[in-house]
Amino acid sequence: MNRLTYNHIAGQSVERLAALSDGIFAVAMTLLVLDLRNPAREAIHGEAQLWAALRAMAPQVLAYLMSFLTLGIFWNGQQAQLNACERTDRHITWLHIAFLFGVSLMPFSTRLLAEFIQYRVALLCYWGNILLLGAALLAAWRCALRSGALKAGTAAELDRAIVRRILIAQALYAFGAALCAWSTYASIGFIVAVQLSFALAPRWLSRF
Amino acid sequence: MNRLTYNHIAGQSVERLAALSDGIFAVAMTLLVLDLRNPAREAIHGEAQLWAALRAMAPQVLAYLMSFLTLGIFWNGQQAQLNACERTDRHITWLHIAFLFGVSLMPFSTRLLAEFIQYRVALLCYWGNILLLGAALLAAWRCALRSGALKAGTAAELDRAIVRRILIAQALYAFGAALCAWSTYASIGFIVAVQLSFALAPRWLSRF
Amino acid sequence: MNRLTYNHIAGQSVERLAALSDGIFAVAMTLLVLDLRNPAREAIHGEAQLWAALRAMAPQVLAYLMSFLTLGIFWNGQQAQLNACERTDRHITWLHIAFLFGVSLMPFSTRLLAEFIQYRVALLCYWGNILLLGAALLAAWRCALRSGALKAGTAAELDRAIVRRILIAQALYAFGAALCAWSTYASIGFIVAVQLSFALAPRWLSRF
Amino acid sequence: MNRLTYNHIAGQSVERLAALSDGIFAVAMTLLVLDLRNPAREAIHGEAQLWAALRAMAPQVLAYLMSFLTLGIFWNGQQAQLNACERTDRHITWLHIAFLFGVSLMPFSTRLLAEFIQYRVALLCYWGNILLLGAALLAAWRCALRSGALKAGTAAELDRAIVRRILIAQALYAFGAALCAWSTYASIGFIVAVQLSFALAPRWLSRF
Repeated sequence: MNRLTYNHIAGQSVERLAALSDGIFAVAMTLLVLDLRNPAREAIHGEAQLWAALRAMAPQVLAYLMSFLTLGIFWNGQQAQLNACERTDRHITWLHIAFLFGVSLMPFSTRLLAEFIQYRVALLCYWGNILLLGAALLAAWRCALRSGALKAGTAAELDRAIVRRILIAQALYAFGAALCAWSTYASIGFIVAVQLSFALAPRWLSRF
Repeated sequence: MNRLTYNHIAGQSVERLAALSDGIFAVAMTLLVLDLRNPAREAIHGEAQLWAALRAMAPQVLAYLMSFLTLGIFWNGQQAQLNACERTDRHITWLHIAFLFGVSLMPFSTRLLAEFIQYRVALLCYWGNILLLGAALLAAWRCALRSGALKAGTAAELDRAIVRRILIAQALYAFGAALCAWSTYASIGFIVAVQLSFALAPRWLSRF
Repeated sequence: MNRLTYNHIAGQSVERLAALSDGIFAVAMTLLVLDLRNPAREAIHGEAQLWAALRAMAPQVLAYLMSFLTLGIFWNGQQAQLNACERTDRHITWLHIAFLFGVSLMPFSTRLLAEFIQYRVALLCYWGNILLLGAALLAAWRCALRSGALKAGTAAELDRAIVRRILIAQALYAFGAALCAWSTYASIGFIVAVQLSFALAPRWLSRF
Repeated sequence: MNRLTYNHIAGQSVERLAALSDGIFAVAMTLLVLDLRNPAREAIHGEAQLWAALRAMAPQVLAYLMSFLTLGIFWNGQQAQLNACERTDRHITWLHIAFLFGVSLMPFSTRLLAEFIQYRVALLCYWGNILLLGAALLAAWRCALRSGALKAGTAAELDRAIVRRILIAQALYAFGAALCAWSTYASIGFIVAVQLSFALAPRWLSRF
């Protein structure tokens, strides 16, 4: 009888999963900048015009900054999970690959939002991308917890901290997305504010 | 007499080969999204039009998802091999570089398929790419086995599991490609179904 | 009472931060070359024309070389910091992510400068990018020092060496940028000279 | 007196240099494929036309394959050096960064050669790029040898093997480049043959 199947040997290295993830995050975070297009040379005839053209790029730069923040936040979130994992298996690995699919879509969603910043459809696509990231991360965590892949120790406490963080963040993103019924600019402003506070982690927020 | 030749010292680090592979997979998986082009701004005059334009991108998104799955599957496959290797040598390394050549071609094959989805030539190119990946991986495995580069232990059992998986997968891909005699959409649907079942690994499949 | 909050578990791995940084540097340093566009094929009718077209690319190649040097210098600077860190926390991590944001902007600034090499606005944008890199690196260092994340040992001496290096370099860059009041070419020449001497590290400079 | 200068602490980690190198190689090897452009959709009206358009891409695919081989060969060469290093210092690091500059130029040289395959200027640019790679690698090796950065043991034997390999390879590339006086196709054919034999490493070659 043959006990060793392919699924027992695939996807077991946390290090390689972390390396693939760091690579995909690195490319996604850097590709975003390819969408910051130079002003066309023919249209520029002086310093003032160049300065005006650069200022006109402000919404694109805002969208770029927002996505860089988003990817930074989710990179931190995924890293906290992988650090807690003793080993991985193919189910956990595939949930992380689904998460990385969401990461790789981020340059597309960002470009769409920067181009169509006043369209609700673009904003909802962007939000859908963030929702996919959160859902995949939560599923990967639950799967790791269930299959006993975590390091011994603070698993229960960690579980509360990670699940609470994902749910609170996603609730805030969902509220921000809902604001687009009123104005897409309000949505974006709210989401940027949420992300800046996650990144800056002021004292009053660190209780969560 | 001079015993130490260059070929004795080249290509011996499994870690660096793994790092190069993770990097190439990360770039290839993320570059695929560059081909998801935004709808042109001039053509969009309302939410409904933007939504319609996004829905029209469905075949490209499908091709993108299929390739992301494919690369995820082969990343897992290569990782299982490298995990089993104690060391590597220049022949094994060059077979893995040939494998990575196939990986780096994937964004091109995907773009070709997304653009010419109803053309058999495009589908056969895509299938040729998958065949190259499988053949290089099988050759690298056989070479590692022959040259004693594997970790002591379950080599024989591992050998059966890995070779069986590659042959079954390639037989299914070849059948899928053959379906294009009837319809390229049938081919793509079949291949996506195969890949989803490898990724999701349901119970009835895990016997293989 | 619940002591373990998300902020205690996020962003603690120096290795993963180093891996993300290496990835972002690798992509940024390689993407720069995408802006070296081939001469258009239709315009070339002989060897002499191709040679002339390549020589006309000299300013772009110079800007590319300058940015590659800049990124190499800052990669070395960040590496020296990370090597000195025993661990990291989420504040240090986010300051490094801000630094990486500056790194990812570098292909944009470079392209802008290469395209508008005689415009002061472009040169000041480029300098602003370098300033952001220096400021983020200094803040990350100070934060690591204050929070006791450094390895025991030469912290005080290291502190002097790192802070002095960042301040001297930024003072030279600021002087170089100020030269643009006279000529942007003088600015670029001066900055390239500064960077070459950092890279080549001749004897008389190594006292700093 | 202050002994610890910045130059003593910069550029000392072999692991981070290896990680940056793997990243840059991964991006450069994958970016090459971006230059394999799809046939234009409007020009294709049937399977035969698509097949003909793909066959017309043969020279580009050849140039792509040649560059992938070249980068694979130099990746192996650099890896052999870094494996032999116990530590690194800022001079060694900067010579490797110069080497990586040559790596990052490879997509540009390749694109130039693929576009202007019958022009000697393009071929000589490509050869200049290979020469830069070899010269930087040789200088980095000599610098590591002189500064005692190598692991104890087979340094002298390794030195002979590495220097001989670089000189033989560069002599063959130079001969190949010189063939362009007769025909650029002869040059390319000869260089591809040299590279294939380095990659395949047949028995009669392994004496070198």
